[in-house]
Amino acid sequence: MRLSRYFLPVLKENPAEAQIVSHRYMLRAGMIKQQAAGIYSWLPLGFRVLRRIEEIVHQEQIRAGHIPLLMPTLQPADLWRESGRYDDYGQEMLRIKDRHDRDMLYGPTNEEMITDIFRAHVNSYKDLPLTLYHIQWKFRDEVRPRFGVMRGREFLMKDGYNFDVDRDAALHAYNRHMVSYLRTYERMGLTAIPMRAASGPIGGDNTHEFLVLAQTGESEVFYDDRVTGLKLGQRDIDYDDRAQVAAVCEEFTTLYARTDETHDPAVFDQIPEAHRKVGRGIEVGQIFYFGTKYSEAMGATVVTADGSRVPVEMGSHGIGVSRLLGAIIEASHDDKGIIWPEGVTPFPVGIVNLKQGDGATDAACESIYKALAAKGLEALYDDRDERAGAKFATMDLIGLPWRITVGPRGLAAGKVELTCRRTGASEEMSAEAAVDRVAAIYAGR
Amino acid sequence: MRLSRYFLPVLKENPAEAQIVSHRYMLRAGMIKQQAAGIYSWLPLGFRVLRRIEEIVHQEQIRAGHIPLLMPTLQPADLWRESGRYDDYGQEMLRIKDRHDRDMLYGPTNEEMITDIFRAHVNSYKDLPLTLYHIQWKFRDEVRPRFGVMRGREFLMKDGYNFDVDRDAALHAYNRHMVSYLRTYERMGLTAIPMRAASGPIGGDNTHEFLVLAQTGESEVFYDDRVTGLKLGQRDIDYDDRAQVAAVCEEFTTLYARTDETHDPAVFDQIPEAHRKVGRGIEVGQIFYFGTKYSEAMGATVVTADGSRVPVEMGSHGIGVSRLLGAIIEASHDDKGIIWPEGVTPFPVGIVNLKQGDGATDAACESIYKALAAKGLEALYDDRDERAGAKFATMDLIGLPWRITVGPRGLAAGKVELTCRRTGASEEMSAEAAVDRVAAIYAGR
Repeated sequence: MRLSRYFLPVLKENPAEAQIVSHRYMLRAGMIKQQAAGIYSWLPLGFRVLRRIEEIVHQEQIRAGHIPLLMPTLQPADLWRESGRYDDYGQEMLRIKDRHDRDMLYGPTNEEMITDIFRAHVNSYKDLPLTLYHIQWKFRDEVRPRFGVMRGREFLMKDGYNFDVDRDAALHAYNRHMVSYLRTYERMGLTAIPMRAASGPIGGDNTHEFLVLAQTGESEVFYDDRVTGLKLGQRDIDYDDRAQVAAVCEEFTTLYARTDETHDPAVFDQIPEAHRKVGRGIEVGQIFYFGTKYSEAMGATVVTADGSRVPVEMGSHGIGVSRLLGAIIEASHDDKGIIWPEGVTPFPVGIVNLKQGDGATDAACESIYKALAAKGLEALYDDRDERAGAKFATMDLIGLPWRITVGPRGLAAGKVELTCRRTGASEEMSAEAAVDRVAAIYAGR
Repeated sequence: MRLSRYFLPVLKENPAEAQIVSHRYMLRAGMIKQQAAGIYSWLPLGFRVLRRIEEIVHQEQIRAGHIPLLMPTLQPADLWRESGRYDDYGQEMLRIKDRHDRDMLYGPTNEEMITDIFRAHVNSYKDLPLTLYHIQWKFRDEVRPRFGVMRGREFLMKDGYNFDVDRDAALHAYNRHMVSYLRTYERMGLTAIPMRAASGPIGGDNTHEFLVLAQTGESEVFYDDRVTGLKLGQRDIDYDDRAQVAAVCEEFTTLYARTDETHDPAVFDQIPEAHRKVGRGIEVGQIFYFGTKYSEAMGATVVTADGSRVPVEMGSHGIGVSRLLGAIIEASHDDKGIIWPEGVTPFPVGIVNLKQGDGATDAACESIYKALAAKGLEALYDDRDERAGAKFATMDLIGLPWRITVGPRGLAAGKVELTCRRTGASEEMSAEAAVDRVAAIYAGR
């Protein structure tokens, strides 16, 4: 993408309404624009990251054997009357009347609707296990939306629902979600720690939240800091292997890590003092096993192997897709701007032309731009007629992990400069070497 | 995807509520489920096609130089008060009050919001031309929703908006959209004819609708049938070349083709009788040039080269993404089910195992399944323990363009069968040859 033809409305001033760094940088980098309290447009740069995060979530859910579909944003109130939550849900539910005066609502979550889909079509244990998920816009009418996309009203969420014939199978689905979430967050460059949590309005007793450590987090967290060193890495997971999946969960949940809701000071105090940490965390996902709460209320049953009919065992599992942009920025920035992890960056690399209009420099930039494209990498090429300082400031603000700088002086020596956004380290090399290096960094992503 | 692990709830009976073939087949093939009048869940098979269509739309918009972003589904009423449309729009607009009693609405279209984004960030002719688009859920509270996704209330639409400094540039943007739409529809296997249309509530005098000929279409259309033979094909378009783009538009709009709204019998009668046709069409897109209607009302101006300030010239351009599934099925089916064009099929090919449980047959199917995957093709493998007739009926209903049938008798002779859904023609060949043939069919898609 050539910046001269892009729409990247960066702001020079810090917006007064932004209280936390992710909100400030998302506004300044031209990623979002507020349209109403807690409701945002995703400008082109923000939309690219959102799509990238969505894609990673899809890939890891599909890898775990979960099946994507898409439920609508609006739901009939009657479904929620069946579960009893229509009256319970309170003012966060956006209630709507259509032109025929029918009660509708903008879905804050989808347990009722997915249970309705299940009961309409599935009748036998032979069709289980089944996990269905979607990534769709939700609405929660927060009384005081704030912190940008971290606590918006209209937000994008992945929510998945497992259907299983018995408790053991449902717990395996729970574990499968935990492992797939660990991989999802790692691919985004995040350390998200599963912490035992309280269940809230969804119901159920087994539940973990995934928290990213950050000073601006909404939850107080208590943990053994050895938990932050655990990595799933590239290990090969067979999601059908119950023992293997359970062992990974065991590995990631044995060390103490809890939110204030489930914190137990007596247990916490047994951690060696050097590892005992109190901090704050941003919730980026949550998994629940709640058994038959919805299936019983809504009549979602299956015939088992012995011919009896039982309510199906369920759980629900969510990732805050739009909120993740905020969480990633909270966890990865400096005082110049965002530092995108390679997994989610809007563009893999930027090209800065130090002397736009100079024939040789323009030609070298074009040639690098095309060489990257030939390797499947779309660079953001700053081809504007601007001074170098402004170009560097924009690149630092929007946070592309790598930058290739091209100027007449370097070209005279056959060199361009490759700069790492995170470390600030620069290295001179030939244009071909810079292209190859960037391609190697992104190989396999 | 192995069918035994998929969620494909096909129906044996014709659903009573479905009056047209696309609605009937989408229900029977387990693609959609109605959740309220005109509001559907997209079950896994339907969601795959929806995503595929969305992807083609994105690719062709980006090829034309248009920039994706994403606006929210809910909008503040105040924006629509600025344009005067809040009161004009009538009962099709779903009006909502939030918990603070603020007037909101579920966007039926986005002229106001995109103009708001533009005026907040663009000030100079130097930032033009600019075309922004998104693919987002919309809501129109139709009094009688029907025909499935063809006339739903919650529907997915691509809507794009061009911003240009003068009329000539805006007309070029109009033409660019026409050409990009022609390519979009052709990639989906559709012949969509641009027809001069009336503008309706969007405003403006230049507008074309794109219509797919089908007996179930909502519009009466009058055309010279030579227009159906025009093809854009693989020609190389430079979207910055005004003359080239205008010439393509000329080629596709010179022959008579109009809806009843703009039909002129005197001109129509001059077409040679053999080519004069009256039929019905399904609207799958519309482009508008409306000039300064919104920019004047909302104060979206730019400074021109001579320093004066003018309201920006605009147009808006839409593709009915979710409705396209219905249109494609109306245009491509037989009495056994859907016939997907290769460009949008949910799976490129199906594998039917005629003797599930037979070691050699199972192994041959697995090997074909993996060989296809290695070539980037995800087959739908019917590995259920079902009789052959039921498997064929399901494959015909869901309409994958190609099917590989594997049975013990054929394998004994080293053969499998490759069948074309459209023609019904089958050919015996080795498994390797079948895989290569399918890969060749999808090469470059």
